[in-house]
Order: sequence, then structure tokens, then C-alpha cells
Amino acid sequence: MKNTIGNAVTLTLFGESHGAATGVVLDGLCPGIPVDRTAIERQLDLRRPFGAISTARREPDAFEILSGVYEGKTTGTPLCISIPNTQTRSADYDALRTVARPGHADYTGYVKYHGFADPRGGGHFSGRLTAPIVAAGAILLTMLREKGIDLGTHIARCAGIADRGFADPAHELPLLNEKRFAVLDDAAGEAMQAAILAAAADGDSVGGVLETVVTGVPAGVGEPWFDSVESVLSRALFAIPAVKGVEFGDGFAISELRGSAANDPMTVDAGRVVTLTNRNGGINGGITNGMPILFRTAVKPTPSIFKSQDTVDFVKNEPRVLSLSGRHDPAIVHRARVVIDSMTALVLVDLLTGRYGTDWWKERK
Amino acid sequence: MKNTIGNAVTLTLFGESHGAATGVVLDGLCPGIPVDRTAIERQLDLRRPFGAISTARREPDAFEILSGVYEGKTTGTPLCISIPNTQTRSADYDALRTVARPGHADYTGYVKYHGFADPRGGGHFSGRLTAPIVAAGAILLTMLREKGIDLGTHIARCAGIADRGFADPAHELPLLNEKRFAVLDDAAGEAMQAAILAAAADGDSVGGVLETVVTGVPAGVGEPWFDSVESVLSRALFAIPAVKGVEFGDGFAISELRGSAANDPMTVDAGRVVTLTNRNGGINGGITNGMPILFRTAVKPTPSIFKSQDTVDFVKNEPRVLSLSGRHDPAIVHRARVVIDSMTALVLVDLLTGRYGTDWWKERK
Amino acid sequence: MKNTIGNAVTLTLFGESHGAATGVVLDGLCPGIPVDRTAIERQLDLRRPFGAISTARREPDAFEILSGVYEGKTTGTPLCISIPNTQTRSADYDALRTVARPGHADYTGYVKYHGFADPRGGGHFSGRLTAPIVAAGAILLTMLREKGIDLGTHIARCAGIADRGFADPAHELPLLNEKRFAVLDDAAGEAMQAAILAAAADGDSVGGVLETVVTGVPAGVGEPWFDSVESVLSRALFAIPAVKGVEFGDGFAISELRGSAANDPMTVDAGRVVTLTNRNGGINGGITNGMPILFRTAVKPTPSIFKSQDTVDFVKNEPRVLSLSGRHDPAIVHRARVVIDSMTALVLVDLLTGRYGTDWWKERK
Amino acid sequence: MKNTIGNAVTLTLFGESHGAATGVVLDGLCPGIPVDRTAIERQLDLRRPFGAISTARREPDAFEILSGVYEGKTTGTPLCISIPNTQTRSADYDALRTVARPGHADYTGYVKYHGFADPRGGGHFSGRLTAPIVAAGAILLTMLREKGIDLGTHIARCAGIADRGFADPAHELPLLNEKRFAVLDDAAGEAMQAAILAAAADGDSVGGVLETVVTGVPAGVGEPWFDSVESVLSRALFAIPAVKGVEFGDGFAISELRGSAANDPMTVDAGRVVTLTNRNGGINGGITNGMPILFRTAVKPTPSIFKSQDTVDFVKNEPRVLSLSGRHDPAIVHRARVVIDSMTALVLVDLLTGRYGTDWWKERK
Repeated sequence: MKNTIGNAVTLTLFGESHGAATGVVLDGLCPGIPVDRTAIERQLDLRRPFGAISTARREPDAFEILSGVYEGKTTGTPLCISIPNTQTRSADYDALRTVARPGHADYTGYVKYHGFADPRGGGHFSGRLTAPIVAAGAILLTMLREKGIDLGTHIARCAGIADRGFADPAHELPLLNEKRFAVLDDAAGEAMQAAILAAAADGDSVGGVLETVVTGVPAGVGEPWFDSVESVLSRALFAIPAVKGVEFGDGFAISELRGSAANDPMTVDAGRVVTLTNRNGGINGGITNGMPILFRTAVKPTPSIFKSQDTVDFVKNEPRVLSLSGRHDPAIVHRARVVIDSMTALVLVDLLTGRYGTDWWKERK
Repeated sequence: MKNTIGNAVTLTLFGESHGAATGVVLDGLCPGIPVDRTAIERQLDLRRPFGAISTARREPDAFEILSGVYEGKTTGTPLCISIPNTQTRSADYDALRTVARPGHADYTGYVKYHGFADPRGGGHFSGRLTAPIVAAGAILLTMLREKGIDLGTHIARCAGIADRGFADPAHELPLLNEKRFAVLDDAAGEAMQAAILAAAADGDSVGGVLETVVTGVPAGVGEPWFDSVESVLSRALFAIPAVKGVEFGDGFAISELRGSAANDPMTVDAGRVVTLTNRNGGINGGITNGMPILFRTAVKPTPSIFKSQDTVDFVKNEPRVLSLSGRHDPAIVHRARVVIDSMTALVLVDLLTGRYGTDWWKERK
Repeated sequence: MKNTIGNAVTLTLFGESHGAATGVVLDGLCPGIPVDRTAIERQLDLRRPFGAISTARREPDAFEILSGVYEGKTTGTPLCISIPNTQTRSADYDALRTVARPGHADYTGYVKYHGFADPRGGGHFSGRLTAPIVAAGAILLTMLREKGIDLGTHIARCAGIADRGFADPAHELPLLNEKRFAVLDDAAGEAMQAAILAAAADGDSVGGVLETVVTGVPAGVGEPWFDSVESVLSRALFAIPAVKGVEFGDGFAISELRGSAANDPMTVDAGRVVTLTNRNGGINGGITNGMPILFRTAVKPTPSIFKSQDTVDFVKNEPRVLSLSGRHDPAIVHRARVVIDSMTALVLVDLLTGRYGTDWWKERK
Repeated sequence: MKNTIGNAVTLTLFGESHGAATGVVLDGLCPGIPVDRTAIERQLDLRRPFGAISTARREPDAFEILSGVYEGKTTGTPLCISIPNTQTRSADYDALRTVARPGHADYTGYVKYHGFADPRGGGHFSGRLTAPIVAAGAILLTMLREKGIDLGTHIARCAGIADRGFADPAHELPLLNEKRFAVLDDAAGEAMQAAILAAAADGDSVGGVLETVVTGVPAGVGEPWFDSVESVLSRALFAIPAVKGVEFGDGFAISELRGSAANDPMTVDAGRVVTLTNRNGGINGGITNGMPILFRTAVKPTPSIFKSQDTVDFVKNEPRVLSLSGRHDPAIVHRARVVIDSMTALVLVDLLTGRYGTDWWKERK
């Protein structure tokens, strides 16, 4: 199980940046879920580069559904989405075949695959593979929203600039999820984009922190220990190549508190058990407690920069100085956000299907 | 696969805090690995409560190896370690059966298991279950060290006090791994212990951050995407109930840098590809690059405190005020460290076995 | 996942014939299932050797439930059953350490485990490991029967003597499942036992064919392709070391028919879709069709015989002539029957839990 | 893990008979394996209908490799093969949407997928899905043959006519594997084809038994219990919808023998441990013993026949009489043979990769 994630519902990922196609196979879905091409296109569009803050490579992402959908609905059998690659300019990469781009997987992929991996555009390690994940995510997000579970991600920090936090997620999510540059405070978003452009002007790049909230998940979902909600979500999030940190609730900050401040006091509100704070991010002992699930993901700055860098030719085993040309993103944090939403949706659909059965979606009011 | 982790080598966890026993089944190990009861006892001892900074419950951890070892060596068939529970004082918990301890899994476990879970001492969610993990970890750590892979964890922060970072891990690890309170700077350790006692005197608790380094892992280990080294390690680390954050390399801090600072420059040193900095924590694209693997784990303050807390009776669905008695840890960060080492060793042995085959350990010089 | 089977509900097997214990960990069970020690003892008793037709080794099978049961019911967390070994006479095996018993796994186990496997009594390959499987099966069979699913196995053939087939399984099963020597026609059973004794008198052994029927499984259970009901059942059945063939419905005989005879005609009976014959054994395309599931399992003659045999010393790589002493079964087919029932119950509980969710058992009328 | 099989090397299957495409994702392959389009076409050709004994539907099987191959060799990342469907005549099936074809999965698929599955041509249950399995198998068979492992399948029985058995597999396999109608005795093959045509003339169909031999697998491969060679092979074989029985070595016949006849005597030949007979089919205790692996697979007669049949409309829940038109195979046993070879190759590559590591193929002489 290398490029497959999930238990009751699984996603298998394939493809290379400059190969014939990238794609996913989604298996274990409830039959009868509407599959809306427009919803998929909309999510792909949110992932797509835009404006001056993104790479000039603009894939049309003309996805094909090869299986698993009949008369506009899921069949319950494996759903394969393929996205042919078209805008490849592999010549950009020819000079790089044996020279590692620092911060990328060129050297590690070379060692792992003994020189046989497709090196063009990062091959199987490329961010291009998040496109079919996002296409699959569109179906999964539709499923969840129809059952009262919503989720979304904002850019909590980028280039040193902070967005405000969620105040009332249930009401903030619909608007947030329409935004191409996902911030709660648009002024912060403007400042972030200016900072991205400034880094781009320097031939450099920036990173950021994404914060995700999920509302409407019932209490009692998840497993103790190895399939804790934190375990399965973090596994999915760290699959995204640029992610270097994940924290739930107050995360690293909670470790600075005393227990009396960190324990979320509980009460009964309208007949329902709730916590008065949510420092544990909606999860206790790996199981959801019915409060919003909250986590943050650290995204490193795009490793492709135009400044010259010290590196190596890993075939000749010699030092090199590298100056990249080509088309690169000065930031991906704003594009990564729909990838995080998609991975989160996958994990939730998997957990709910495992707990409530294959047909939970159809049977749930 | 709920309480099982791993692919080529798996660990299955069972037990409750006040049941007959806790234990693990380790499967997929290379035959012929020496199993040293003293090494297991030593690791269990490092996990055991000690002094005033720990709970008064002192389990002897008299483990039994039920299978998988013959004439002092692994057979290659499943290795079961059982640790009978003896020092249980379940009466301490009687009053709590329907009252949630904030920050614990009482309420979530009740909902998930419909009231059938063993509620005594946290049942299957109890930190007691880390004892058999540590016993298994002792075997795994021995395996790794014999092949030149070492690892260890220090308390990077506790109660607001910082330890110094690793300077020369290969030389620091042997000494660190002997310490009962694992810090690199003993003065910082004294201050941390004083702070833990101060919290305990207030009937309160503290958390901390653990930093782990692994040396000697060759380049090329791990998978892209869902079985990235970050993915599989974070899944294992977040299995520990108190963990709320995991970051690799510079982690959240790397998201504040520009790419030119975040990309680790590369060179050739003594014929070997190395990076000049290690902000990516020894991992690129999910695959090891041959540099030390470095990560930090945020541990929340122990939820069991003696201050009164607002909570609920989840059966009667009514608010309650809870004052805990019994035996509790004012901090677990110093005990959690060998658990992290054990989970890390498990992940590494699994990855190495998957890559190099069942007999890698025997065949590797 | 080597010694683990199942997806939603898993069973992990550990132990050696002459080690400290054999056992299983069952995970993913619905919470609240009654666990009745008497029911477990009864199933273990049906597996135990009896009379002159079985080995003189009589293990008391004094099982211990180490976890997963609280106040007489499953907790929903991993259920570990351990059966300590007590009646071991390992000296019987000393002379055999490097001499392969033909038909056994001595040589293959030696090669696979490089000489480190526990060789006493077949070690991990021993039929002793079916005891904890049977103990687990008792819980699973209770679950199924409470929900209207019954199953049982009779000795269809033994030593060339045939039992009659099932005529009305729903009514035949309760009586059959009480019998120590499970035949539908007691006269056939007497003849089989006489034939077993005759073989024993010759220092030889016999095999047989077991036929299993399952009633009450609803239509729509199973998966196409790799998790077809036939696939998952056959995987479980071939796990039993002596099994060399598995067939569903008419099995090998159906391949001799024409389609017009092999296709089970369908009709509606009392508002329910049924087939008029059941040559496909209740399964079409890997999915149950609501008719009884029917399959046969070929069990080879016990390989331990007292006649002298040509074999090898696999360490010295030399031919040997072997004459076994010790305690051995002249037939195991009558004991294997509860093992088959247990494996079948496990597969069904796993499939039903995957399809209907963790709590299907509790929620199902 | 529903439509996925394997541990170290996995195959994920997708597609429907009349959808856009069928395909597979193969993951975990060693990098550097040559991928030869001609070899794939040749295997697909052996699976393709031919002559009067097969359906008139002739798919060109114009496969596309979407990922995982670069410069003619495997990259080590997921290899996706897609075979677009082109020769669909779905109108043939319109009348059948709610009428079950006896022996097919129409009714069971309807129940399982609540009426949402693609019903055209059997949808995901169609034998069409074996085409991409065969394409993948071509790569796997090439791998194995380059390392001295060969395998092949002959039609041991068809329509009551028997082929002779293997006498000297190593020498018989190359010729056998070139044959379109795979028999060892061509006269028997002629008689079988005549019998198939006779059944076709009656509007009926026939089944058969396929016998497979594998040479060159070293001793020590496989696992005890649930991943025994018999377990994993039978799981793969029963995935093929028409398979109703699997037996290893002497299979059902061994259950009629006494132990003294069933135990394969052992000796040392040219320094190597061998058995003098091979009634256990090269497997003891689930582990290979170095002798040829031998098994037989029972294939039921094609359920699509032109005789009128009693059946049901499963939506109206009413009896019906069905007379099929369209294009159907009077036998598939001769086409199934390359599917069995492919599934066998997959299982072996998975077992060898698990045992010897990801790079076993590259490193093995």
C-alpha cells in the first residue's frame, strides 16, 4: 500500500508531472452520490495558478472520469479520474536530470529509484499530482456538505503576515470557500499577495500556515491509538510534499499551558455536551468530541527559486551551482488550501464509512 | 486495521488500564535478532514513574514474552509481549464512571463504544498501553543500533523552560539515552523538574515539547505521498494520546522563511552527498536524504489535575463539577520520550524491512 | 499484515506449539456483545482430541481473556485471548530438530526462518494455533446466531466413506453443531471412525472433505474481484495448514456441466428472490444472493504417521529414514471442522461489519 | 481495500464493461524493469476472443500506459494501464436492466449497489476487466522469466474431455505459452474445441478445469497461516468471476489417500532437497519447498446462453422468462488461462518483493 490511503474508502494516486496523465482511483464510495462536473471544475480552478503570484504553467486540467460514474451518480465501484498532461515543456528540465534542486526530491528520488524515475518536472513527486486529488476531493466535499459536515481552510500566515482566526466557522466557511485567495481578512490577503510578489521580484519564494476547520462531525468518530483522528489526518496532510508541520487545536502552544488551562471545560448546551473552549481541536483520545475539528498545517516556501544555489550533480557526485529557469510558483500556500480540504474530506469520508457502513451517506438524514 | 500499525513489520496493541494485561504483537521481524530481557527492562524503567514528579502508581511491568522468541532470539513469527496489570486501584475511578474528566477520552470513548468500554483508569485509552509499546521498542532499538542507526529524544521545552538543541547527535545520543530525565543541559532539566513540582503543588500539570533525532538512516528510505517518512512517523506519534503537534526540521518556523533560506544547500563531503543546513529534517519529498532525521512533538499537559473543573455527567446529560483524587502525573513529557523513541524505531524498522526485505537486518553489515 | 486477516474486523494470531502460549487479538468488534466462557469452552471441547481416534496430548485449553471484555461484554477495543501451553513434551522432538517430517513444514520453515524458528512440535505452524482461533470463533458464532445467521460443517467424506449431504440446513445445523463427530448420517460416522482406527492400527492416517453451509446471510454481501466472498473465504480456509482444496457450490463438478444446467434458475418465492437450484453456492460475481452459502474443504491426511519414511536432514543436507514416535492424530478432519466454522464466522463478521458499519450487530433486529 | 490486492506490490482494478475504460494501477514494482508493448499485446491477444468458439465482440485492447514507465522501463512509481472501451453495443443490454441473467451478478450487484451500478454488459463484474489484469500480467511475467521463474496454464478438462498432465514443465511451458488454445495434447484440444462448438450450436456453453504449474520459485517463500501461498493464490484466483474451485497438488484427491501415500518422501538430489512425488503441490505449511507449484482452477460454464431461462425482474420482484441475444462466449476457459497466469504472476511478484525487498528483481542474478 504505497500510493494508497484509506481503509473503508481508499484513494490510489498515479502519474508524473510530464507523463501521459495523473489520476486517482477512489474506491469504497457509497453508490448514488451525484457527481457534478461543474463542482469538480470549480475545485480544480481554485487549485490552478492565477495572476502574477503563480507559475505561468497553466494546465487546463481537462479531467476524464474513466469509471465508477453512471448516469451522473457514483456506481459504488472504483471511480477513476484521469487528468492528461498537456502543457509540459520538458526541455526546461533537461539540464537538470542529474543536478539536484535543493529542497526538492530530485536527489532522494534518484537514490530511491536508482535513476529510473521520470525526472521531468519532479516526476511522481510533482505538485501536479495534487490536481486529481482535488478532483476527487470535489466529490467528497459534496458528499459531506449534503450531510451537514462543512470544512474549509484559510491562509493563517503567509510571508510573516497573519490572517485573523475563525470566529464563527459555520457562517464563515461558505464565503471563504468561494475565495480564490482564502483569507478571512481581505486586507491581510492583500498584504500577503504583495509580499509574495516582492519575493517573486527577488527570484525568491515564501511559505505559510494554513488553518482548517471542520464543522458538523458527530462525536465518537475515530479510533484510539494508530487510527486516531490526528493520526489519520496528519498522515494525509504530510503526504503533501511541502508540508513540514501539523498541529491540532492549540498544538505546540498547548504544551506551554498548565492542565487547568489546557483542559477544555465541559457543559451541556441545548441538551448536547459541548466544551467551553476548544484547545484540543475537537478531538480527545483520538476520537471526535462533537466540537469543530481545528488544525494548522505548515507549508514550506516553494523550493523552486531563481537565485543561484549550491547543490550537487548526484551522478558525478560533484558540487554544482544551480540557477533555475522555467515556470515556478513564488508561493503555493494559496493553492495548497484546496488540496488540504480534499485530503481532509477523504479522511472524514473514510472514517464515517468505516464507522457507519458503506451506505452511511445514503441512509443518513 | 484499527489497533495495528505498519506494513512489512506490524505492531498490534491490546489491553486496558485495569484489565488483565496490556500487550503487543510484533509481526514481520527478521529471525535471529537477540532479545535481551535486560534491555527491555531498562527501557521500561525509563518509562516508569519516578520521584515526586510522577504518579504514585508504580507498576512493576513484569512483562512476559508469550511467543516469537526461542533460545533468546526472534523466531521470525509473531512476538507477543504481555504485561499483566497488578497495581490497579479501580475504586478510585468508581465515582467517575459517568463523569467526564476534561481533556481525557471519557466522553468520546463513551460515545464511540456506547457505554461498553472499560472505564477504569481510561481503559484502552490509558497511557498504560505505552508500556508494551516500550517493551517492543527495546527490541527494535537494539536492532537499529546494531546496524549503525541511533536515535534519541530530549525534552526541548517543559513548563516554559528550554533545553539546548542537539549539537553533535551521534556523540550526544549514548549519554542522553541513559538519562532518566532526558535533557542535553542538566541545569535546564533541574529547572524543568522544579517547575513540574511547582505545578504539582498547585494541583496542576504541565506539558512540553520533545525533540528527536535519528542518525545513520541511509538516503532513499520512505515513499512519496501517503507513506512519506513524515506521514508514517506523524501517524505513529499522534497515536500517543497527549500529542497535539508534530513538525519536521524547522517545521512551523520554516514557513516563515523565504525559499533561499529554507532550501538546504547541498555539497559533496568525503564522497557523500550532504546538505549544509538541515531545515528539512533529513527528508525531501517524503524520502530520507541521508542527513539526520529531526522532528519535534508537542505534548499537552497531563489532563488529570486536582483543581476542580467544570464537566458533565454524560449519561444524565447534566453539568457537574469534578474534583479528582487518586494518583496522577503532574507531567508525562519525561516519560513519553521512550514511547516516542519506540514508535520511531517501529516506523524505521518497518520502512527498512519493506525496502530491503525481511532479512535486511541479518544481511546488512 | 502477515499473521493478520480481515479488514473491518481483524484477527491476529500468535504462538508456538511448545512456547508459553498461543493466542489471538480480535479487533473491530461491535461493543456490547456477550462473551460467554461456557460457549468458548464448548467450542474448544469440540476441537479437543477425544477417544482412540485422536492424539494422546490433551491440552486443557485453559484460556485467558487478557483484554477487550468488561462485565461480560465486548468493549469494542482489541480482545486478546491467550491459551497457555502446558502439556508439552518437547523431548519428543529433540531428535527431529534437523530432520524434516515429510508433509510438514519443518524444511520450509527452516529455510524461511534461517533456522531460528521454534522447531518444537511444529512451532508456529502447529495445529495448536487453531485453539485460540476456535476460542475467538465461539464469540463470533454467538454474534451471528443471535442475528439469524447460522452455519455448520459436516464430514462429507473420510477415508473413502461418504456422509449424506445437507437436506434442510436450517433444521439440521443445531443438532449437527452439538455432535463431537460431525456427520449427518451417524452410520456413516461410525464407519468413518472405524476406518480411522484401522489406519491408526497401521501406523497411518487419513484425510477427508468437510462441507460447510451458512444460512441467513442477506443478499448483497461481498465485493467484486479480490474481496469476493469466495476470495476471502478461501484465503481464510487455506490458512489451515492441512487444507489443499476449496470449492463453492458444485465446485469442480460445475465445470463439467453446460451453462443451461449450471445457471441456477431464479424465481420469486414469498416476495423474495430465490434460485431453484444452488449450484453456485449462494454467490454470484463474488456477492451473496441470499441462498445458503455452501462450500467444501479438502483436508489432507495427517502427515504425522508411524511408518518409516524417506526424508532429509536439512542441515547436513543428507537423506535420512525417519520413524516417528510421540503422540499424533490418525485423523484431524473431525477436529478441523470447528476451525472451519470459526474462520467462516470471522469472514462473515468482517464482511457484515464492513458493509453495515461497526455497530451493525447492535442495530440489527 | 476492495479492488486492490497485494501487500508489497499491489494491483488496483477499475472500470466497467461499457464505460470509458477499464484499467489497473500496479504499485511497488522495482524500478528499471523493461516494459515491452509487444509483450503486452501478445498476452492481450491470447486473452482475446478468436474463431467460432468465442464472442463476436472483438475489442482492439488498445491500451495506454498513463504513468509509471519512462524511457521504456518502470520508474518504481505507480504504473497505470488504461484500456478504452470502444466496441460497446449497450443497446443489447437495455431490455435487461432489471432482469437478472441467471449465473451472472446482475441481481447481486443490484442489491449491493442499490440500483446505481452500471448494468451494461455486467458493468464492473464483466470479464472485460480481466483485460487490464492481463496487460499488467505481461510485465510481471517478463520480470519473473528473466529471473528463472516460469509458469503456464493448460486446459486440463473442457466439456468432459481431458488433456494429458504436465510431464516436464520446464520444457513444456515455452511451447504451451505460445498456444492460443492451451493444451499439452493437441488432439485433446481439437476435441475440446469441437465440443465447444457443439454446445454453441445448442445455444449453450461449457466450462473446464485449468491446471497451472510454476517452476523456479525458491524454497522459503510465503507465510504461515493467512498469507500462505495457497491463501494468497486462492484469493487471487477466486477473484475471477467464473472460478468455483481451487486445489493445490493432488487437492481433493489427496483427501482420499492415507498419510503414507500423501506425504511426499524427500531426498537430496545434486545437493538440493527435493521431494520424490509432489502431491502437496510444492507447498508445505503455506511455504514453498522448491518443487514446482501446481494447482487447478475450476471454471464454470459461461452463464450467458441462448436457451430460454427462468429468472426474475428484481425491481418488479416478479418471475420472468429470459432469452438472451447479443454476443457471448460459449466457453471462456481458453481465454481465462492468461488471466490465471497474470494473477499468479502478481501473487509471486508480491511475495518475492515482500521477502527480498523492493529491489529484489534488480539485485537477483
